[in-house]
Amino acid sequence: MKKMDLKEGEIQHMVIFKLPYPLGSDKAEKFLKDGTRILTGIPVVKEFQAFKQVSPKNDFQYGFSMVFSNQANYTTYNEHPDHVAFVEDRWKKEVTDFLEIDFKKPY
Amino acid sequence: MKKMDLKEGEIQHMVIFKLPYPLGSDKAEKFLKDGTRILTGIPVVKEFQAFKQVSPKNDFQYGFSMVFSNQANYTTYNEHPDHVAFVEDRWKKEVTDFLEIDFKKPY
Repeated sequence: MKKMDLKEGEIQHMVIFKLPYPLGSDKAEKFLKDGTRILTGIPVVKEFQAFKQVSPKNDFQYGFSMVFSNQANYTTYNEHPDHVAFVEDRWKKEVTDFLEIDFKKPY
Repeated sequence: MKKMDLKEGEIQHMVIFKLPYPLGSDKAEKFLKDGTRILTGIPVVKEFQAFKQVSPKNDFQYGFSMVFSNQANYTTYNEHPDHVAFVEDRWKKEVTDFLEIDFKKPY
């Protein structure tokens, strides 16, 4: 069985979120595709994934996941103008609820 | 940039959770290692990962992640005696809070 463990120092940053659009709608797909395009354009972002969230045990509809090699790259991402613009112009205007999760290797 | 997208039909099952033990304690590490050993022994489980959760924006401390090739394998996992025993004997006795997340490819 293939194991995909994070390396020492790597951080997997995830966010699960809701949009105010019908599931599968063009507006929802556009948000996911724009987010993917904008965030994957930031050089420190590795292994970006977009998801739909399908568990009935929580209310979130979508997810983004990415890996940073270290905390400095995570900070670079947070402060990158394209990330800041995405948060201001799209995230704050469209996302209605979200939860951030950050993973590191456990031991 | 490497992309790690899920294939059509695959489900990434994640759970983030809290334990009643100090972070980094032997009891916490034992729970993570026992869970990893028991759950990776179930043949339908792919790409299993254990994590510590480090974002201050939520209260969960750890995570497990795995991928199933399809819904039938997810059901096989849920009903597998080793999973059922782990839930009864360990999860229900030790985990104090948790959130389940299931991801599929978005479109």
